[in-house]
Amino acid sequence: MTSFADRLAERVAARSSQIVLGLDPDPGKLWPVALEAAPAEGDPAERAATAVAAHCTAVIDAAGEACVAIKPQLACFERLGALGWAALETVTRHAHEAGLLVIADGKRGDIDVTAKAYGQALFGPVQTPFGELPGLQADAITANPLMGRDTLAPLVDAARAAAGGVFVLVRTSNPGAADVEDLRLSDGTPVWERLAAIVAETGEPGAHGLADVGAVCGATAPEHLARLRELMPRSPFLLPGVGAQGGRVEDLLPAFAPGPAGGLIAASRSIVRAHEQDGGDPATAARAAAESLRATAWSLV
Amino acid sequence: MTSFADRLAERVAARSSQIVLGLDPDPGKLWPVALEAAPAEGDPAERAATAVAAHCTAVIDAAGEACVAIKPQLACFERLGALGWAALETVTRHAHEAGLLVIADGKRGDIDVTAKAYGQALFGPVQTPFGELPGLQADAITANPLMGRDTLAPLVDAARAAAGGVFVLVRTSNPGAADVEDLRLSDGTPVWERLAAIVAETGEPGAHGLADVGAVCGATAPEHLARLRELMPRSPFLLPGVGAQGGRVEDLLPAFAPGPAGGLIAASRSIVRAHEQDGGDPATAARAAAESLRATAWSLV
Repeated sequence: MTSFADRLAERVAARSSQIVLGLDPDPGKLWPVALEAAPAEGDPAERAATAVAAHCTAVIDAAGEACVAIKPQLACFERLGALGWAALETVTRHAHEAGLLVIADGKRGDIDVTAKAYGQALFGPVQTPFGELPGLQADAITANPLMGRDTLAPLVDAARAAAGGVFVLVRTSNPGAADVEDLRLSDGTPVWERLAAIVAETGEPGAHGLADVGAVCGATAPEHLARLRELMPRSPFLLPGVGAQGGRVEDLLPAFAPGPAGGLIAASRSIVRAHEQDGGDPATAARAAAESLRATAWSLV
Repeated sequence: MTSFADRLAERVAARSSQIVLGLDPDPGKLWPVALEAAPAEGDPAERAATAVAAHCTAVIDAAGEACVAIKPQLACFERLGALGWAALETVTRHAHEAGLLVIADGKRGDIDVTAKAYGQALFGPVQTPFGELPGLQADAITANPLMGRDTLAPLVDAARAAAGGVFVLVRTSNPGAADVEDLRLSDGTPVWERLAAIVAETGEPGAHGLADVGAVCGATAPEHLARLRELMPRSPFLLPGVGAQGGRVEDLLPAFAPGPAGGLIAASRSIVRAHEQDGGDPATAARAAAESLRATAWSLV
């Protein structure tokens, strides 16, 4: 079975894209086509979940060709309850059929037995006395390392068993990153350098030199990227924060040092809501925005 | 609307209990009564989810009277897919009907717009163009503070709007706590002291003096409890790690300084699997184990 690192490198090369399509569906801001897909009446949860799934599949159909992966935000599906989780499964299948990888963005982290359960939930399979359950079958997940190495290990084990990957929070894109991640340790280095060291030691490189444990590094603090790359020479970086949050693709060059798949640029609002800025119908605007971002990023490597 | 802090204080007093019943259902280790409740054949996910819900409701019926709350582990439901989330909703309703608070243990944490979605998912309600969705209707949640204050704020806002509470990870019960939480900062204090300061400044006290933002503090490191209480004088502590993980109730005294509800003792395996050690049928053994733990803890305050 080809490792996640190699699958990622090959998929990025084949699609000439490092763009990760963020899917954070808000029931109040869906594309018109999604509203039309929902049943006209009945259970609000069923109508909302149907519309959210239709929205995400429409976004994938419009912009997916310029992307290498989708990144569904688990919170946005969980808020719809059980039917929201079913919508997440539908969207995952649709992305796979479109040749896209799926990075389940839930930022999970917990003690060993619980981390193992999260690994089963997101990668699958789940053995039960009633038969095997598939789990979500994500290709990669995001994880929170606050609780330490023994909470990451079961997620990485589950990932490897499914040829999947894990992106660990290291230095995020939000202002609050200053509160804990940026704290100075007794040796003068920030906490995020220690998180980077954990990522570097946990990842295993594949045939293309890329590791199967990556890092979430906000595109809003490009001044840290060179140091992050020095600390994690082989880790793929998942880079949120481009577009709506203010990050610029041109500032992400150090991410691509280990190859084109070294930096994955996550964008959601700037693609899904491109029509609000650029006009036109949502699908056409999203396709153009994704292709523009793809071309800009690809020109850097 | 009475705040979570006051609801918690009143509920602990009324039930003479600080015990939180941890529900981490493993489909391979369910009570026999749960296996019997599952359909004899059909979809494995439906059978597993039915059995898991039956297991949890049976555990609540057996041991709930000695407890003040349940703490369902979200990972264990998510691994069953959409029907697992439906089982979580069933278990939450059953706990409420039994007079128990529900602490949804998912250790969530994400940027503002996503944290808001998690708040909607776990506390509800969720406004959609199709009508209002209820969300899980938990009374409290656990949260991960790595990404900083601006990621906690939307969770706390959602909690307060629902008279709910948030328990923030500060110093956890697992060995890996040493990797990040225990790192020494430039002023010589560990990272967890900074997390404790964030919790202390975020919580708002109710009429009973207890705050609505609490801390997850592992019962396996009682040497830190006095300092944690000093840093967070009004925060309720959620204390996992008693029993299977090695923590002792007798060592938790500093937690109770602000009153009986200052320390909530989370126990799962030591109650749910008491029959494996003590013999007898699972329900009787669970009831006795929970009552014994309750009496020991209550005698301390």
